[in-house]
Amino acid sequence: MDSLTMRPVARVRTGFESKFGVPRQSGLVPGLRGQVVFEPEFRSPEALRGLEGFSHLWLLWGFSQNRRAGWSPTVRPPRLGGNRRLGVFATRSPFRPNPIGLSCVRLERIELGTPQGPVLHILGADLLDGTPVYDIKPYLPSADCVPEALGGFTDETPRPVLAVDCPPELLEQVPAKDREALLGVLALDPRPAYQHDAERIYGFGFDGLEVHFSVDGQRLRVREIEKK
Amino acid sequence: MDSLTMRPVARVRTGFESKFGVPRQSGLVPGLRGQVVFEPEFRSPEALRGLEGFSHLWLLWGFSQNRRAGWSPTVRPPRLGGNRRLGVFATRSPFRPNPIGLSCVRLERIELGTPQGPVLHILGADLLDGTPVYDIKPYLPSADCVPEALGGFTDETPRPVLAVDCPPELLEQVPAKDREALLGVLALDPRPAYQHDAERIYGFGFDGLEVHFSVDGQRLRVREIEKK
Repeated sequence: MDSLTMRPVARVRTGFESKFGVPRQSGLVPGLRGQVVFEPEFRSPEALRGLEGFSHLWLLWGFSQNRRAGWSPTVRPPRLGGNRRLGVFATRSPFRPNPIGLSCVRLERIELGTPQGPVLHILGADLLDGTPVYDIKPYLPSADCVPEALGGFTDETPRPVLAVDCPPELLEQVPAKDREALLGVLALDPRPAYQHDAERIYGFGFDGLEVHFSVDGQRLRVREIEKK
Repeated sequence: MDSLTMRPVARVRTGFESKFGVPRQSGLVPGLRGQVVFEPEFRSPEALRGLEGFSHLWLLWGFSQNRRAGWSPTVRPPRLGGNRRLGVFATRSPFRPNPIGLSCVRLERIELGTPQGPVLHILGADLLDGTPVYDIKPYLPSADCVPEALGGFTDETPRPVLAVDCPPELLEQVPAKDREALLGVLALDPRPAYQHDAERIYGFGFDGLEVHFSVDGQRLRVREIEKK
């Protein structure tokens, strides 16, 4: 009763082919570029009329790679080191009764009339390539911006940030427009959760590149960047 | 493909039995009281652990009274007088491809161990009584609060507010804790959209009361308040 079945209206295109490296909230890496490409039925410039006046959007999207059967009342947020259990409704964990995500992204520009219809160019998305989008809403500062809000455990626990060493000759492999975003992603620590082996070389895919790195303490060193 | 079927995790209890009077965004009437009552399967205090540290929540909910077959690329926002068509993705209109709503509400307190399990007491909800809730997420100031965001047409068009005259002997019919909220709801103009007949007496239900009023220009007069 009152079940709701939603079909995707669009998909997000980003440089993240797997969950490694994807920031854990939107806006953490403001320079991360992405696109919203509509599904064929929804390729209507009319449906976007007036959207150009907004600087930010909400995307409601599906956790397509993180589905589990059933639900658990508690989860262990990575932000707390994976040691503390919190209620699922007190976190933005992907493992929710209904696997739906909410992200605020910056609308950089709207490109009309591409071969795939209108495309939204967005910044700051914390989303895997191909993520289904179920709704797009304008960010309304009067209703959505609450400067006095208290952030619970996220206020107490600063997000850890790594110092990043990337040799210039490696960084040159990356298109100039994406360098800052890559460094931002690396600073957020793209290792799989709870792996802390200083000797190990980790790798993740970023926009057609394979980035290899190691982490010793709070310092990340880029070891190699290669085209895939 | 990639369809997502969601079942309600909770329902909202408010004093609004019909859409008349329901504010058009959350937070417009900060004193409006509501409750979130979980569905039997989700009555778990554990699932709320840590939520008490947050002052605001997101509710993702279903537009249960506003479903239409199909979708239209444009809508006419009441904020613009119903004359201008805007793209559905540029508005928070209920008539969307997927009928899902997003509201930021204030978490007043959590009551554990009621006969209906844990209950969230919320303030500022723009929701009909019985609205199905599909997800509850904490409001994260670091990701969700964007003070510099531009609000498109909502920046250009101030929300009209009526002056409200309510004779004290009528206001006394309303429980003291709900008076300010009722006056706030009236100031937002609870008439059906686009009806502007100064002679007509309108009525709407609010928390077990029937409130009758008329509107002349920018002035609303309460004519009667009776228990139903």
